[in-house]
Amino acid sequence: MYTERAVRRTYDARNERAARTMATFIISLCAILMLTTVSGLICRKAQLPEVIGQILVGILVGPSLLNVMHMSDSLSLFSDLGIIILMFLGGVGCDLQLLKKYSKAAVIIACMGVVFPVAVMGGVSLLFGFKPIPAAFIGVVFSATSVSISVAVLREAGLLDSKEGVSILGAAVADDVIGVILLSVMCTLVNTGSVDVAGLGLILLKQVLFFVAAAVVVVWVAPALMTLAGVLKAPSGIAVMAVIICLAMAWASNLAGLSYAVGAFFAGIAVSNSDYAEDADRYIEPVGDTLFVPVFFVGIGLQTTGVDDTKMIVFIAIMTVLGVITKVVGCGLGGRMAGFGGASALMIGAGMVPRGEMALITAQIGFNEHVLGSEYYSTIIFIISLVTLVAPLLLKLTIRKVPGVGAAAAGTAGAEQ
Amino acid sequence: MYTERAVRRTYDARNERAARTMATFIISLCAILMLTTVSGLICRKAQLPEVIGQILVGILVGPSLLNVMHMSDSLSLFSDLGIIILMFLGGVGCDLQLLKKYSKAAVIIACMGVVFPVAVMGGVSLLFGFKPIPAAFIGVVFSATSVSISVAVLREAGLLDSKEGVSILGAAVADDVIGVILLSVMCTLVNTGSVDVAGLGLILLKQVLFFVAAAVVVVWVAPALMTLAGVLKAPSGIAVMAVIICLAMAWASNLAGLSYAVGAFFAGIAVSNSDYAEDADRYIEPVGDTLFVPVFFVGIGLQTTGVDDTKMIVFIAIMTVLGVITKVVGCGLGGRMAGFGGASALMIGAGMVPRGEMALITAQIGFNEHVLGSEYYSTIIFIISLVTLVAPLLLKLTIRKVPGVGAAAAGTAGAEQ
Repeated sequence: MYTERAVRRTYDARNERAARTMATFIISLCAILMLTTVSGLICRKAQLPEVIGQILVGILVGPSLLNVMHMSDSLSLFSDLGIIILMFLGGVGCDLQLLKKYSKAAVIIACMGVVFPVAVMGGVSLLFGFKPIPAAFIGVVFSATSVSISVAVLREAGLLDSKEGVSILGAAVADDVIGVILLSVMCTLVNTGSVDVAGLGLILLKQVLFFVAAAVVVVWVAPALMTLAGVLKAPSGIAVMAVIICLAMAWASNLAGLSYAVGAFFAGIAVSNSDYAEDADRYIEPVGDTLFVPVFFVGIGLQTTGVDDTKMIVFIAIMTVLGVITKVVGCGLGGRMAGFGGASALMIGAGMVPRGEMALITAQIGFNEHVLGSEYYSTIIFIISLVTLVAPLLLKLTIRKVPGVGAAAAGTAGAEQ
Repeated sequence: MYTERAVRRTYDARNERAARTMATFIISLCAILMLTTVSGLICRKAQLPEVIGQILVGILVGPSLLNVMHMSDSLSLFSDLGIIILMFLGGVGCDLQLLKKYSKAAVIIACMGVVFPVAVMGGVSLLFGFKPIPAAFIGVVFSATSVSISVAVLREAGLLDSKEGVSILGAAVADDVIGVILLSVMCTLVNTGSVDVAGLGLILLKQVLFFVAAAVVVVWVAPALMTLAGVLKAPSGIAVMAVIICLAMAWASNLAGLSYAVGAFFAGIAVSNSDYAEDADRYIEPVGDTLFVPVFFVGIGLQTTGVDDTKMIVFIAIMTVLGVITKVVGCGLGGRMAGFGGASALMIGAGMVPRGEMALITAQIGFNEHVLGSEYYSTIIFIISLVTLVAPLLLKLTIRKVPGVGAAAAGTAGAEQ
């Protein structure tokens, strides 16, 4: 009798909580869509990238200012799916031949974009009194690009299939690969004081296996599946098959230790390599725009917490500026080395500035592993948000300077109005 | 120091759990879409309603058989959103003028469809040895129709805007209103032994307020908002505005004590009353089909648990048959009383058979309030699943018998191939 009563009480509490959670989620989602509709209007009038408005909406309603909305489990799920859909659409819009052509350039850009933040921001952290390992960790945190924000800006400007666009996307994939390796090196270094070569070998093996599998999917599996979906003529069959491929590859890339975004990006490329690229884009875009993508960008703002400690202001200011400059200079130099002109290299550098989930996860691990104290942990999260807020603005500005591309982007925007 | 370490450990555990949850969710969603694509093919070949295949997929992979998938919080969220989107699309496809014309018929059908299950299934429960209040509670559980399943079948057959279709949808709304009142009467009866008239008055007042607000939204607010969205020409603006209206009304109906489905249905009607009904349908349908609706139907199967107790078999068999018959006869008689012909009345009765969330919630409350023992609670959930599995089959069969409508449905299906 006692047990049954206890079970009842647990059931009761869980259901009440679930019901309240659902109501809160629905009204939060509704509010996010309303506010981002308004912010989108303002940004288009002011010729700002829309993502900036969405992040600011998150900061406004989040714990830093009004404190009326918080990042719940459900919003967090939608935000993660927003990244996946955004990267999938990035892949669909990406030109596979162009990506292949600029893959070497992408690797150079990514490497330079890792070396600069690790060296400069790690070095400056030493000057701020951090010990070598925590300083290196801070460098690694700021080496991880989250390109999804640039994807949104590039889509807005219609530049996903420009040579600068594919270089940014390719470099972001390479950046993720390097980031995972660096992070695992740092983790074993922190825990054991030495580098675990066997463990690293396993990580590399898993990554290689993923890329081989991804190539097979892009070239053979996905086009066959999409053709099958077209033949079967099920209602929404094309859209469902595209989502199946997207989720399967996102899951596989996560299994290989990479981020979901990488798998989703290759899924997008795979679908764009079939006869149904346009259909997939037309069906999946509203799925992202109506539900998931706004939650992702507002979520960045929601996760930003204010910093009370005025002593930190110098640290924050310097690290934010360096966070932007190290990527612009590093990746820009990489772009020049790969043969891009000055304006294009600058645009590529700006496109690699955003930091997001990957940097947050790395900082989180540093916090869990006792490498970062809690005061520096929240400060670093604040810096990541600031850098990410500057990034789309910078990308939009640099796009205008690129001969041909800037005019094309302006032309596209003009044609839409 | 101790506190910080404790905080770290909590963070760590929560993040690890969140990461694992996300991976499980992604592969579950992917598996659901793959399996329902296959089940959809089989059902179309066998001329069965696709929802039956989807529910069977859930039973197959769920705890009753293979036990490889479970209803997680995330899947449950997607399932709830699936109901909302399905009912929204039901509203978009519904003909407002026709619905108005048949609103009196709908109320008669709903009332008859409540009286029969409460009287017959409550009475039979008395024969099975239940005391009066638990017996009445079982009757109330089986009086609540969940029409979303019929909406899927009616959409498949292109019959949402037939006079039988709007009568089913209207009756389902009236059924929800009656259900909420009955449930609160039962709850106060169980807790205090008498009926709380003031509380009932408040519930009625909230419902009236909701319907007044819904009418204002349908006639003025929604068409104005949709026109505004059309003028603003934001990317995906029409789809986003439709989702905003849908979520806001679902939230409001929940606030008024009604189910989310009722609000979503009126939101659909509101959008269909604007100039952008077709756009909304075209954008929102893939959102539902690719992600949420399959999760809802598979989720019904996932929540079905087998019953070990062989003594229960007679109870299950009788109650399942009665669960189907009481609605078919009750609502069918209601249809006849409202002037429908025999075949149409039978189709309306079949359309009102499905039980879902509302019945599950009522059973849950009965369990929490100690009215139902745990052995009867899980048995009743099993019966609800069986009834719901029979319902779409029955509806599809009865549709064929309706003169004109059946031929039209066959014609639509033929034209699609």
